Amino acid sequence: MLTEFSIVPLGVGSSLSGKLAIVLKIIDESGLPYKVNPMGTVIEGEWEETMELIKKCRDELMKHEERVLINIKIDDRKFKTNAIDEKIASVEKKLGKSLKK
Amino acid sequence: MLTEFSIVPLGVGSSLSGKLAIVLKIIDESGLPYKVNPMGTVIEGEWEETMELIKKCRDELMKHEERVLINIKIDDRKFKTNAIDEKIASVEKKLGKSLKK
Amino acid sequence: MLTEFSIVPLGVGSSLSGKLAIVLKIIDESGLPYKVNPMGTVIEGEWEETMELIKKCRDELMKHEERVLINIKIDDRKFKTNAIDEKIASVEKKLGKSLKK
Amino acid sequence: MLTEFSIVPLGVGSSLSGKLAIVLKIIDESGLPYKVNPMGTVIEGEWEETMELIKKCRDELMKHEERVLINIKIDDRKFKTNAIDEKIASVEKKLGKSLKK
Repeated sequence: MLTEFSIVPLGVGSSLSGKLAIVLKIIDESGLPYKVNPMGTVIEGEWEETMELIKKCRDELMKHEERVLINIKIDDRKFKTNAIDEKIASVEKKLGKSLKK
Repeated sequence: MLTEFSIVPLGVGSSLSGKLAIVLKIIDESGLPYKVNPMGTVIEGEWEETMELIKKCRDELMKHEERVLINIKIDDRKFKTNAIDEKIASVEKKLGKSLKK
Repeated sequence: MLTEFSIVPLGVGSSLSGKLAIVLKIIDESGLPYKVNPMGTVIEGEWEETMELIKKCRDELMKHEERVLINIKIDDRKFKTNAIDEKIASVEKKLGKSLKK
Repeated sequence: MLTEFSIVPLGVGSSLSGKLAIVLKIIDESGLPYKVNPMGTVIEGEWEETMELIKKCRDELMKHEERVLINIKIDDRKFKTNAIDEKIASVEKKLGKSLKK
């Protein structure tokens, strides 16, 4: 199961990088395969471990925030592993060229 | 905590209403406050009960589908209850008029 | 074409209802069919008029904000009109019962 | 302005890579800075050029599809250029380590 998520605390002003660093440290230490992009983080894992990780990020931010917004987008496909690498590779193969990542 | 979610099975053709009926039956029977809109369902509940409900909908669809896409959007605000009714009411009060719902 | 969108200014503290009132006034006056829900607004319209309306809301907020986040979700289906009313009605018919809206 | 978007045709079965290749060819040829991730594509551009590009992708898919779903997430920040590279760099600097991309 592939999951992209982003989390934004409200009320901290327009610079978020310090808060995002806290979240990305948790993700990086989780051991789940992940890829950061400028709008969110894609992780690969089963439902329970994925939701537990997102909850951990939210709980950590909520220690110091009054309100957070979270976006979660899931692509859940039976019998599919290593989708985090293969999904783009499969498109690139069809295109016959490399894409910017 | 307010959560809007939608779930779409891939590969069933462009008519989804039968699949959505299965999902909405589960939500309606959950006992959590909810509101259906044409693009998703907003539910109000704590993290665990909300995620358990979404997982139940996903598990039910995955019995017959090979792939589903899920979108989850969370507005998590400390000490806030009955947000499912009060959020729009608060905007209408500021506007001094009723909105279409 | 059905479009749900939400727009959030960053850096205004955790109470957003005043900002959302500005946005909803613009939507209400646009003349496009719409339905407000606690997490966003669903509008029905063609691509150009929909995107023009969302841009108008964003331009208005950006007069006083330094940063906004916008979520847009589109369900675009050929030859389908009045989807804003019929989508839920079609699910309710399959369920044989009314849902909370 | 940073925009992540994804587009999914309904009714094509669970393998989408051929359809996504068509979309990514259009994005790659647009000349706008972009980064592909396993759940979508992040592009950097002004409102008009961004929405024109997304519409072009949608129009191309709708030639052969009856229904598509589109997700668009925008992070619009005044006076900010090259956010597509700097957003992650700024977080990495705060963390003092590189992240997986």
